[in-house]
Amino acid sequence: MAGNSFGEIFKITTFGESHGPAIGVVIDGVPPNLPLNESDIQFELNRRRPGQSVITTQRQEADTAHILSGVLAGRTTGTPLAILINNTDQQTRDYEALKNIFRPGHADFGYQTKFGIRDYRGGGRSSGRETACRVAAGAIAKKILRNHNINIIAYTLAIGDITAKKIDLATIEKNPVRCPDPEAALLMAQKIEIARNQQNSLGGIIQAVAHGCPAGLGDPVFDKLNACLAHAVMSIGGVSGVEFGDGFAAAARHGLEQNDKFYMDGDKVRTMTNHAGGILGGISTGADIILRVAFKPTASISQPQQSVTVDGKDTSVEIHGRHDPCICPRAVVVVEAMIAVTILDRLLIQKIIRESPASV
Amino acid sequence: MAGNSFGEIFKITTFGESHGPAIGVVIDGVPPNLPLNESDIQFELNRRRPGQSVITTQRQEADTAHILSGVLAGRTTGTPLAILINNTDQQTRDYEALKNIFRPGHADFGYQTKFGIRDYRGGGRSSGRETACRVAAGAIAKKILRNHNINIIAYTLAIGDITAKKIDLATIEKNPVRCPDPEAALLMAQKIEIARNQQNSLGGIIQAVAHGCPAGLGDPVFDKLNACLAHAVMSIGGVSGVEFGDGFAAAARHGLEQNDKFYMDGDKVRTMTNHAGGILGGISTGADIILRVAFKPTASISQPQQSVTVDGKDTSVEIHGRHDPCICPRAVVVVEAMIAVTILDRLLIQKIIRESPASV
Amino acid sequence: MAGNSFGEIFKITTFGESHGPAIGVVIDGVPPNLPLNESDIQFELNRRRPGQSVITTQRQEADTAHILSGVLAGRTTGTPLAILINNTDQQTRDYEALKNIFRPGHADFGYQTKFGIRDYRGGGRSSGRETACRVAAGAIAKKILRNHNINIIAYTLAIGDITAKKIDLATIEKNPVRCPDPEAALLMAQKIEIARNQQNSLGGIIQAVAHGCPAGLGDPVFDKLNACLAHAVMSIGGVSGVEFGDGFAAAARHGLEQNDKFYMDGDKVRTMTNHAGGILGGISTGADIILRVAFKPTASISQPQQSVTVDGKDTSVEIHGRHDPCICPRAVVVVEAMIAVTILDRLLIQKIIRESPASV
Amino acid sequence: MAGNSFGEIFKITTFGESHGPAIGVVIDGVPPNLPLNESDIQFELNRRRPGQSVITTQRQEADTAHILSGVLAGRTTGTPLAILINNTDQQTRDYEALKNIFRPGHADFGYQTKFGIRDYRGGGRSSGRETACRVAAGAIAKKILRNHNINIIAYTLAIGDITAKKIDLATIEKNPVRCPDPEAALLMAQKIEIARNQQNSLGGIIQAVAHGCPAGLGDPVFDKLNACLAHAVMSIGGVSGVEFGDGFAAAARHGLEQNDKFYMDGDKVRTMTNHAGGILGGISTGADIILRVAFKPTASISQPQQSVTVDGKDTSVEIHGRHDPCICPRAVVVVEAMIAVTILDRLLIQKIIRESPASV
Repeated sequence: MAGNSFGEIFKITTFGESHGPAIGVVIDGVPPNLPLNESDIQFELNRRRPGQSVITTQRQEADTAHILSGVLAGRTTGTPLAILINNTDQQTRDYEALKNIFRPGHADFGYQTKFGIRDYRGGGRSSGRETACRVAAGAIAKKILRNHNINIIAYTLAIGDITAKKIDLATIEKNPVRCPDPEAALLMAQKIEIARNQQNSLGGIIQAVAHGCPAGLGDPVFDKLNACLAHAVMSIGGVSGVEFGDGFAAAARHGLEQNDKFYMDGDKVRTMTNHAGGILGGISTGADIILRVAFKPTASISQPQQSVTVDGKDTSVEIHGRHDPCICPRAVVVVEAMIAVTILDRLLIQKIIRESPASV
Repeated sequence: MAGNSFGEIFKITTFGESHGPAIGVVIDGVPPNLPLNESDIQFELNRRRPGQSVITTQRQEADTAHILSGVLAGRTTGTPLAILINNTDQQTRDYEALKNIFRPGHADFGYQTKFGIRDYRGGGRSSGRETACRVAAGAIAKKILRNHNINIIAYTLAIGDITAKKIDLATIEKNPVRCPDPEAALLMAQKIEIARNQQNSLGGIIQAVAHGCPAGLGDPVFDKLNACLAHAVMSIGGVSGVEFGDGFAAAARHGLEQNDKFYMDGDKVRTMTNHAGGILGGISTGADIILRVAFKPTASISQPQQSVTVDGKDTSVEIHGRHDPCICPRAVVVVEAMIAVTILDRLLIQKIIRESPASV
Repeated sequence: MAGNSFGEIFKITTFGESHGPAIGVVIDGVPPNLPLNESDIQFELNRRRPGQSVITTQRQEADTAHILSGVLAGRTTGTPLAILINNTDQQTRDYEALKNIFRPGHADFGYQTKFGIRDYRGGGRSSGRETACRVAAGAIAKKILRNHNINIIAYTLAIGDITAKKIDLATIEKNPVRCPDPEAALLMAQKIEIARNQQNSLGGIIQAVAHGCPAGLGDPVFDKLNACLAHAVMSIGGVSGVEFGDGFAAAARHGLEQNDKFYMDGDKVRTMTNHAGGILGGISTGADIILRVAFKPTASISQPQQSVTVDGKDTSVEIHGRHDPCICPRAVVVVEAMIAVTILDRLLIQKIIRESPASV
Repeated sequence: MAGNSFGEIFKITTFGESHGPAIGVVIDGVPPNLPLNESDIQFELNRRRPGQSVITTQRQEADTAHILSGVLAGRTTGTPLAILINNTDQQTRDYEALKNIFRPGHADFGYQTKFGIRDYRGGGRSSGRETACRVAAGAIAKKILRNHNINIIAYTLAIGDITAKKIDLATIEKNPVRCPDPEAALLMAQKIEIARNQQNSLGGIIQAVAHGCPAGLGDPVFDKLNACLAHAVMSIGGVSGVEFGDGFAAAARHGLEQNDKFYMDGDKVRTMTNHAGGILGGISTGADIILRVAFKPTASISQPQQSVTVDGKDTSVEIHGRHDPCICPRAVVVVEAMIAVTILDRLLIQKIIRESPASV
């Protein structure tokens, strides 16, 4: 209801503010007997960690995951898994000047209106820092999915007006923007540097692929797999659009060219094309699930912007905290996490349906 | 869990198949004492009704709404409102030939794999007919929202490669494609006719605006207003993408141009632009909420397409039922309904927060 | 939220008022491929039906179940099953006199205060008539559970001060009070007749047993099997208490005598006694699940009672509609239904846990 | 789904095992702007704390509450409140001997069967230690309810065969059993001492009263206030029964004596008696809500008991950890907490209904 939980079976509940003592996540519905230790989670947290390159925020957080419950001797027990991440490098003084000002492009005004109070320190609950908790949960989801030969990979497809021209997955983690096209990656990194030097910021597009999903995931009508995935990724701060398969381009097409025709590949049903992005009628088809997520430019910029105060006066504001000039390189990890949590949830729901006791 | 409910406070649960005896919706959480009668619902159902013009399916359904509960002497009582819509013009014989074939672009294969059984008659549960129930619920949500001066309006922005060049809301209901640009509307209608004559189909884009929403709607982290709206509209069959405000175009921008600056308009906080589409950090700002929804071309076309049978053989299929060559003109009403249900739900949740007993 | 749904996987949503056109239930999460037809449901509805004997209400309702969706050619499809039961014998004139009076022992005052409006005709939504929908859903749950060799049986243990002295399950359906002790049954029936002739009513206790439940059902902490069952049966109108195993008597005992000791019966773990009623720590042990449900006397009696009017005046009221002088004989069927729905729900949840993909 | 959350608006999710590093609770839906600090929570935790008297377990835990999020400068912000309680006095060696044995009367067998793995250290997740988290959440709920003049008080009504003969609320916290009858309290304490000396344990009954609840709380059909409260208290370990108002005694009565007649007290509707325990048709009437909760004797006793091993062999077991010989004195605080959380949740839900926008 209050919005801090996601998922039905594999259900995550996150808590914590950017400048509070800690953030964390409670995951209920973790399957029992899963080998798990903190390094499984740390690996993904390190990918999302601030300060990992010159083009990300310079806030330094180790983002060390502490598992508080739900694991005994390296195996999950089926009880809730609580993961705690302490905040260590808060610089609250950066935000004192912003205490009474609504930052343009930020949630400040909405939170103040909604709750009549807001934690102004680093955006409080609306900070991107909260996504570390999603990544921690996503690390576990990804591990379980890999046991099912389902792999989720995301990458930066575009930054500003620069778009990857080829997709070489092996190169993604080798450049700071996480772009699968090394040449485009160079241009993107330069563009981000320039934006930062100009006290400006950039948007971008992340593409994600879930490979190996069995057919049959997703539920009729309101919990279609694409609807759940759209909910999942649109809940990441700064996302302004999501599309599946051919997405908006499909709107300009005719049915005959757009429909993915079926054929038999041995005893497997396959489609000759994948315009639909692996989902038909809200249910996975077994083809790659493909989506693109648009991110608007980072709202925090240090140029003066016109704004207003909490008590209703016009003012000007410059935002001098530490920020990512472009969120995409780190958001790649968050997009993967949200997709993993969503697909695992639907995979577990499907367990009930196909293993159901009706016909025994 | 099984996917047939949507909403938390104003919660709708739909049931029914395209060729069963009836479809319907149960709405729990309808505020009490709302003046309501069947004509309030019928008005919106008539807008969505099949057979209303030459460019829609020729299936004839009166789509008469019967209220079975929750209303006493023209007022809601706070108990669940059940609305029944009988099916009257099923032509199941159209589908006998398709009983053992997976139609390309449809949910057939997914449902069969998911459940091990499927109602092949007109797509069964995955039929667009199910959206009549959404429209019935949406009619009530829209009525309540209007009491709050919140109005939701959607229209066809593009069909195939034709895009509206101007937005004249007064003209929307005056042309069969529900386009706010009369000239574009003519071209669109022609294009749809041609597609049908060529046994083909077309996609399109619907734009929607929610006007009058107070600031503060939507909830932190996972239930951001845009995340809930994306879930809502992506759950409509045939949707391939959704974007808010500048959407995918924002990904190519810099922060300084993209941020909507705040200013005081008397005692109201307003933004000088609305690139964000009325939502910041997942919370409404009071500006118009603007989104665009991409629809792929109708999957049902009567040209031969390669496909496979349920028992794993390659085949060819022609789909000869009655279909909309382009779903957008009728889907406009469904998009409005889903947005209305979503916004009303968040409005009711906000009642708890702002009327909360904490500070008494 | 608004209270008209129950269950998580096998989820029922009921609607309808006592004197509206119809009542009904939507069941989401019905496992696919279950052979099902209306007679499966009708059998249980007939057991609950009003007017079945001289000691029940004389309202005559056929309570015919109409399946509107979710079944194709005698098998469930996995989509929601809607069941409609038309009301046919409403005598609304009986209630005109009660329109402005709060009946003692009834929900009238609560509903009026809660909603600011209430359907006064036969109690509206708060009528026991609503339980027909639970019985319809329970019929399906019981059928699925029988496929798992789980049987649920309830019976009248006590009426007023008369208590069954023996439990002969074969006799339950052979007497109108559904008591497993034929001699006590005779006395109970006489006592109910006397109460009715005296324009009075009686309470009673129903005992229920779920036989054949596997160990491992129920979930830690808040969704313990006994907690869910208590919720389920306490939601039936007129219930004033519920206890499991030795129940309140256990409070007066010592641990040594109360603990059920374990022993091996071949390769099965069993308990030497069953003081706990088949549930330990909220999880089923495989022993019979035993509970008792106390029902207060029917609130509707035709003797004059002091009361107040909706507009705040003292008054006196006599209730002359048709009522059960004791609800237990018919409530037996409702208790069984709620237990069945609850246990099936937890059985389906357990499918996820034990069939979970973690350790693959 | 997995059972570790409770509530709909004021929603608590607990985590942690008896012998893990910490336990905790995340509370979503805390109303904003509530003055709150750790001492508000600590007060109630201290009441539940182990080792507080000679008749409780000698495990020493400070049970210090750490608020990790959701509070800024002494006020709640509307975002999730996470409370952490570190475990400090685990003696895991006590449990090594029990690693492969199912303790009679405990959840061990159920958890092992359910999950295929279990944390054997002190009962793991099924330990009563988990209830500290409920008490922490309950402390906040009670504070909010007090702002509404709603007070919840529970006490030990009976221990073994000794029952309080009078109710003097002022004496409850003055004796170690929390009994409102000082003379009975003395006898109860003696009886507990004797049980402990005999390596045995005792059950008891707790009575609770919610005073000041407005009429109109609770929701129709499945979420009746008594159903939700029954769920809440039955989810506490060791509870074997719950009854409201006259409870099981009502089953032996006639309607005329049982019905609480209404009368006007100035402009307030009141009942002349309170046999119903403040709830009619599942909705509060404004009278005191009264319930009794039966606790079976503590399962852990150090006398030898017959049992079985995890690998299916008969054995004998003595349980030598530190335990409460009777759980009631400390469970009083847990019962209050669960009632508070439940009533607050329904109070918040009622905000939506009565402040609803329908009739604007």
